[in-house]
Amino acid sequence: MNFDLPAEVRELQQRTQRFIAEQVIPLESDPRAAGAHGPSEDLRRELVARARAAGLLTPHASRELGGLGLSHLAKAVVFEEAGYSRLGPTAMNIHAPDEGNIHLMEEVATPSQKERWLAPQVAGRTRSCFAMTEPDGAGSDPGMLATTAVRDGDDYVLSGRKWFITGAEGADYAIVVARMEDGSATMFLTDMDRPGIRLERSMEAMDTCFTGGHGVLVFDKLRVASEDVLGEVGQGFRYAQVRLAPARLTHCMRWLGQARRAHDIAVDYARQRRAFGKPLAEHEGVGFMLADNDIDLQTARLHIWHTAWLLDRGEKGNFESSRAKVACSEAEWRVVDRCVQILGGQGVTAETAVMRIFMDMRAFRIYDGPSEVHRWSMARKIVHQASQGAAR
Amino acid sequence: MNFDLPAEVRELQQRTQRFIAEQVIPLESDPRAAGAHGPSEDLRRELVARARAAGLLTPHASRELGGLGLSHLAKAVVFEEAGYSRLGPTAMNIHAPDEGNIHLMEEVATPSQKERWLAPQVAGRTRSCFAMTEPDGAGSDPGMLATTAVRDGDDYVLSGRKWFITGAEGADYAIVVARMEDGSATMFLTDMDRPGIRLERSMEAMDTCFTGGHGVLVFDKLRVASEDVLGEVGQGFRYAQVRLAPARLTHCMRWLGQARRAHDIAVDYARQRRAFGKPLAEHEGVGFMLADNDIDLQTARLHIWHTAWLLDRGEKGNFESSRAKVACSEAEWRVVDRCVQILGGQGVTAETAVMRIFMDMRAFRIYDGPSEVHRWSMARKIVHQASQGAAR
Amino acid sequence: MNFDLPAEVRELQQRTQRFIAEQVIPLESDPRAAGAHGPSEDLRRELVARARAAGLLTPHASRELGGLGLSHLAKAVVFEEAGYSRLGPTAMNIHAPDEGNIHLMEEVATPSQKERWLAPQVAGRTRSCFAMTEPDGAGSDPGMLATTAVRDGDDYVLSGRKWFITGAEGADYAIVVARMEDGSATMFLTDMDRPGIRLERSMEAMDTCFTGGHGVLVFDKLRVASEDVLGEVGQGFRYAQVRLAPARLTHCMRWLGQARRAHDIAVDYARQRRAFGKPLAEHEGVGFMLADNDIDLQTARLHIWHTAWLLDRGEKGNFESSRAKVACSEAEWRVVDRCVQILGGQGVTAETAVMRIFMDMRAFRIYDGPSEVHRWSMARKIVHQASQGAAR
Amino acid sequence: MNFDLPAEVRELQQRTQRFIAEQVIPLESDPRAAGAHGPSEDLRRELVARARAAGLLTPHASRELGGLGLSHLAKAVVFEEAGYSRLGPTAMNIHAPDEGNIHLMEEVATPSQKERWLAPQVAGRTRSCFAMTEPDGAGSDPGMLATTAVRDGDDYVLSGRKWFITGAEGADYAIVVARMEDGSATMFLTDMDRPGIRLERSMEAMDTCFTGGHGVLVFDKLRVASEDVLGEVGQGFRYAQVRLAPARLTHCMRWLGQARRAHDIAVDYARQRRAFGKPLAEHEGVGFMLADNDIDLQTARLHIWHTAWLLDRGEKGNFESSRAKVACSEAEWRVVDRCVQILGGQGVTAETAVMRIFMDMRAFRIYDGPSEVHRWSMARKIVHQASQGAAR
Repeated sequence: MNFDLPAEVRELQQRTQRFIAEQVIPLESDPRAAGAHGPSEDLRRELVARARAAGLLTPHASRELGGLGLSHLAKAVVFEEAGYSRLGPTAMNIHAPDEGNIHLMEEVATPSQKERWLAPQVAGRTRSCFAMTEPDGAGSDPGMLATTAVRDGDDYVLSGRKWFITGAEGADYAIVVARMEDGSATMFLTDMDRPGIRLERSMEAMDTCFTGGHGVLVFDKLRVASEDVLGEVGQGFRYAQVRLAPARLTHCMRWLGQARRAHDIAVDYARQRRAFGKPLAEHEGVGFMLADNDIDLQTARLHIWHTAWLLDRGEKGNFESSRAKVACSEAEWRVVDRCVQILGGQGVTAETAVMRIFMDMRAFRIYDGPSEVHRWSMARKIVHQASQGAAR
Repeated sequence: MNFDLPAEVRELQQRTQRFIAEQVIPLESDPRAAGAHGPSEDLRRELVARARAAGLLTPHASRELGGLGLSHLAKAVVFEEAGYSRLGPTAMNIHAPDEGNIHLMEEVATPSQKERWLAPQVAGRTRSCFAMTEPDGAGSDPGMLATTAVRDGDDYVLSGRKWFITGAEGADYAIVVARMEDGSATMFLTDMDRPGIRLERSMEAMDTCFTGGHGVLVFDKLRVASEDVLGEVGQGFRYAQVRLAPARLTHCMRWLGQARRAHDIAVDYARQRRAFGKPLAEHEGVGFMLADNDIDLQTARLHIWHTAWLLDRGEKGNFESSRAKVACSEAEWRVVDRCVQILGGQGVTAETAVMRIFMDMRAFRIYDGPSEVHRWSMARKIVHQASQGAAR
Repeated sequence: MNFDLPAEVRELQQRTQRFIAEQVIPLESDPRAAGAHGPSEDLRRELVARARAAGLLTPHASRELGGLGLSHLAKAVVFEEAGYSRLGPTAMNIHAPDEGNIHLMEEVATPSQKERWLAPQVAGRTRSCFAMTEPDGAGSDPGMLATTAVRDGDDYVLSGRKWFITGAEGADYAIVVARMEDGSATMFLTDMDRPGIRLERSMEAMDTCFTGGHGVLVFDKLRVASEDVLGEVGQGFRYAQVRLAPARLTHCMRWLGQARRAHDIAVDYARQRRAFGKPLAEHEGVGFMLADNDIDLQTARLHIWHTAWLLDRGEKGNFESSRAKVACSEAEWRVVDRCVQILGGQGVTAETAVMRIFMDMRAFRIYDGPSEVHRWSMARKIVHQASQGAAR
Repeated sequence: MNFDLPAEVRELQQRTQRFIAEQVIPLESDPRAAGAHGPSEDLRRELVARARAAGLLTPHASRELGGLGLSHLAKAVVFEEAGYSRLGPTAMNIHAPDEGNIHLMEEVATPSQKERWLAPQVAGRTRSCFAMTEPDGAGSDPGMLATTAVRDGDDYVLSGRKWFITGAEGADYAIVVARMEDGSATMFLTDMDRPGIRLERSMEAMDTCFTGGHGVLVFDKLRVASEDVLGEVGQGFRYAQVRLAPARLTHCMRWLGQARRAHDIAVDYARQRRAFGKPLAEHEGVGFMLADNDIDLQTARLHIWHTAWLLDRGEKGNFESSRAKVACSEAEWRVVDRCVQILGGQGVTAETAVMRIFMDMRAFRIYDGPSEVHRWSMARKIVHQASQGAAR
């Protein structure tokens, strides 16, 4: 067992660090970064161009596709650095939902699907969305999926309403999950500018870090050719798992960077700001919060690393990625909440980056399964294993 | 000891409840309620007109001034009901900073000052701000006050920069706290549309419930006549205390209403929304959160009532209002955070009122002294009393 | 609404305070107070004699029976003071299970039952136990009751095994809850020195404040005459509720006194003990804990007072006593845990009274229904009320 | 980076696991294990004999001395397994204070000191204590050391009072820390059966896992020859650090085993015990606690592993061992507290091993520096590093 980073990962870490510091953070104060529905498409393209120039675009994609073919562990390191700016994941094309969609497409799509949809996306020229969640559920509980796909000749006809679809506004293509007549689910690929797809509205949300925000999409007899089925018919729920476990973990990584950023801002503030005759940092109450932050950040990092290592070994890691999701989202949230408290009035205003990090982060305890759903799935596994007298 | 509400308070409670439900909540979805710097002045006037018609405007002001002369206990009950809508306190003219300013003016202002500034404010025709906090402190630690007032003939000349001044944009008058040459502080009254006062900008803030937002004000050789001194020269810090202890408590009251609103929304959602085969409310994990909410709401209410009773008896209640501030802000925050979690995706979007309540509420753990400052002042008192062998 | 204590309650509070300080606390270091199964019977009698002399014995019993006929609110005040020493409730004969049994007997027993069993108990000459809990449940979930009572002529024959029966060893009489053939439950009165009753063992427990400890009782064809049925046949579950709601609340009261005692010890220690160049109390981290203690103590007190007031008004208060149970047990536990932390090594040794208070207190989050059971019963009520659109 | 355990460590882990299960756990119910001052010396010798037979005695000692020369990482794995029984560390001779003393002696003692004191200790034939803490401090704050050592000819004369000295009763030798005339500190070695050493008493403590309990020692003009100085004169504080950082971490390891044991007991109970119509484990509230336990256990394990790896690389790891100490003691405590809650009445009685684990564990948040002291030392380091613009 060792915690050494391979030299090439360390090099990439440092390069990402520099890129974020020099090329991305200065753009945080750009007004286009402050839109209610995330950074503007325009700003996104500018950021992507910078990452491309720095050789840091879409690093998780395979080398054939033009990425760096990062292992999960390498992603853990690089994505944390990218997350240090809330614009970093957008710049490097590793933000949700594209990051997870790229991963899924690499695993499941046909060569011609890859050429048509994946290649331009890896190149940062297009964006995608993942249309699964619905107003009445089907987020945490996939059993409630109500959007239907009905076979009609060689095509499928999709009808339903999707909700909280990240990046919907302005997305170039969508992966749509729909229920088949036999109760199974299938994933479909479709361009977004087609009849039968309507963006009902973009939702006003607490988090504003995703270009395209969160949209409500209506599929009204959308016709999809059978060649545009993603993977096999009826395997939609299985693919959703393929997508979710690693996607969940990359959320943990990016948001760890965010939490670390907030912490660094709070440390600086605590060093410089005086109250009651001495710097804040010399107040035990503040010092304890900084120490707790450090503990929480390291806790999150260790869970991420351990789970990434499991995934790299080829394990599914469902239990561990649920565990990491809960541990990280709660720990990172505590960090950011403490930072707001240390910053006082500055913490609840846009005077520093912390306010937006706080607002973005709150959603993380809900996205990709709220902590409660993961806890329950962990509990069932714990009890099941004990029932079998399984060794740990 | 008893917890009975007097009949007239109960009647007022019910009247407020109806007013909020019928006259105020419907306006929550008005676009003018969603401004980045709070409800628009226009909407405020409409709300105030409704409260006036309902006989519920400025109820905490004395009867001479046209209010209802509410006791602190009556305020506890009525303000909680008003807070049930985030527009309620604006409608009834009991929001910060006006509520506290009205209280302070009643206590300290001269008859002519009252006529000039207080009477129109009680009538809901004008708004005020309280210019104390500064960029480098003087929020929690008044010793750091840097804005100066220098005697010049019969006038005082004020210079300095104030920060996080709630309601500044569009306020009609201000109470300005400035440091005298001898280190003491004095409060000054001034109209806002005068040379020497400049609104540098309005800050972008997480909370958006105060009309006028939070402004940065520059006082550049502002000339204030000595007749516009509020109270006695050199007594600024003492008056700040007069203002703060009850103001702190009214924050607790209004935000209790907000937390209760969020809880009610979460209860309804939990009853109706299904996941994993049954309504959310039948999941123990959700049920426990609802029970904890109820405990926290009642805890906050009891602290408020007890402290209000002390204030009504004429006690200063500094210790108790610090205690109530910490207990309520933390308890109410926990409630709202749980509601977001129960609501899931709905909790982090403007689909319900909860998102804005959450964002408004976060600031409450900081405003009027962060929990840490109150805890420390409580600790000193606890230890001091123990040193004196004082009976509890 | 007001929080004034009636003069006679205040007088009784002060008298109890003096009694505890002068007559009870000095006996805490008596070796007979440190038994693994609670204070010895011998010490108990000495303590009772002192309370009798002070006119403070069994104050909750009715005046006819020789008590002081305290209201629930008066109990709230007096029991908190009694709890200031872990021997106080034993001295004043207000400890579990006798306190609850006396209450139940007053409500339900026949005159001759009262004369035979209740009168000597109120006089402090005898002790009782309440035999309900069983090894496989029937603590939190009464539906699991397995001890049976079968009619045989004019008698009932009881068979079963009871577990965690507080005060069993040395008790003079027992109230036994058994299941009838029709599934209902009945309560039976029996002397303890009869054939058919066997104390299998006394359990080794973390808490050691109850004389008689916690026993395992076996009922082997115990014959009980029908005149010794307590109340009506088949009403056992209902009477258990009659007993439990107030008994739950008196636990909160006594343990509030214990928590306050621990806090006072911690305050004194923090004032006197120095570390890193200054008294502990001048360290913010310690000061924050003292402040949080004060908040938690007051929170517990307010919940107790409010619920006691409801009970005095004749309300059942099931919801409120569940709420108070959770709020108090968790708050008082936090207090005592913080005290241990402040005291450091002294906190985990018998150098001060805090160690035993800590060990006694842990059980309080479980006794009379663990926090989880109460939370769930609250949740059902909250949801039920919301379903009915019931006003709060 | 990888989390693979070397094959020989995995083998040792399994061997330890079997040893604990087959040879140690059966002795937990031995009455000699339940003494107020820890397992009896007699039982200790029996346990040690079993470990010797299993080839698992004193595995952390170097191979020259007869141990297995475990790395810190290997200790992390083996000590966790040993801790799975509260008698395990005693059996394998890896309990505090001997474990840390053996480490310190190996680092600092002369060959003849090693032969005289260390060799028999490694062989499990003798026990030692570490006499540093004093009644007025010198635990967390070494600056308060009051025991003095005065040079007298070739000897030193030691006088003072030591407090909370683990294992004092029955120890064969002691390492005594005393203050020199110049304010520095020196460590001295002494047999315990000498004039000038008196065991004033053994303290009654919440934890009962250390043979010899916690004693109060009086040194009254104890004469120590200069050849019995441990290491160099004046280096006592430095050696205390040498001892503490790894000793702190081994506490984390052993107690992780304890927490895991408690968790396994709680899982089994939750699977088998029914309440309200289904097994406890099918109640979400219980399931969430089990999931949180798993998260906390893994969090502790990861912090231990990471810090052990740093120590193996030769880093001092003061910051990281402080961090691990806080993270582990708090996480493991939460686990055990939840287990008590799940077990209900069984949790607060000796019916299972959990009660004693709980009582032993509480002290861990205090031993080797309370969480507060570590947090503060972390905070200073965090701020210092930020001041230097140090890269993380």
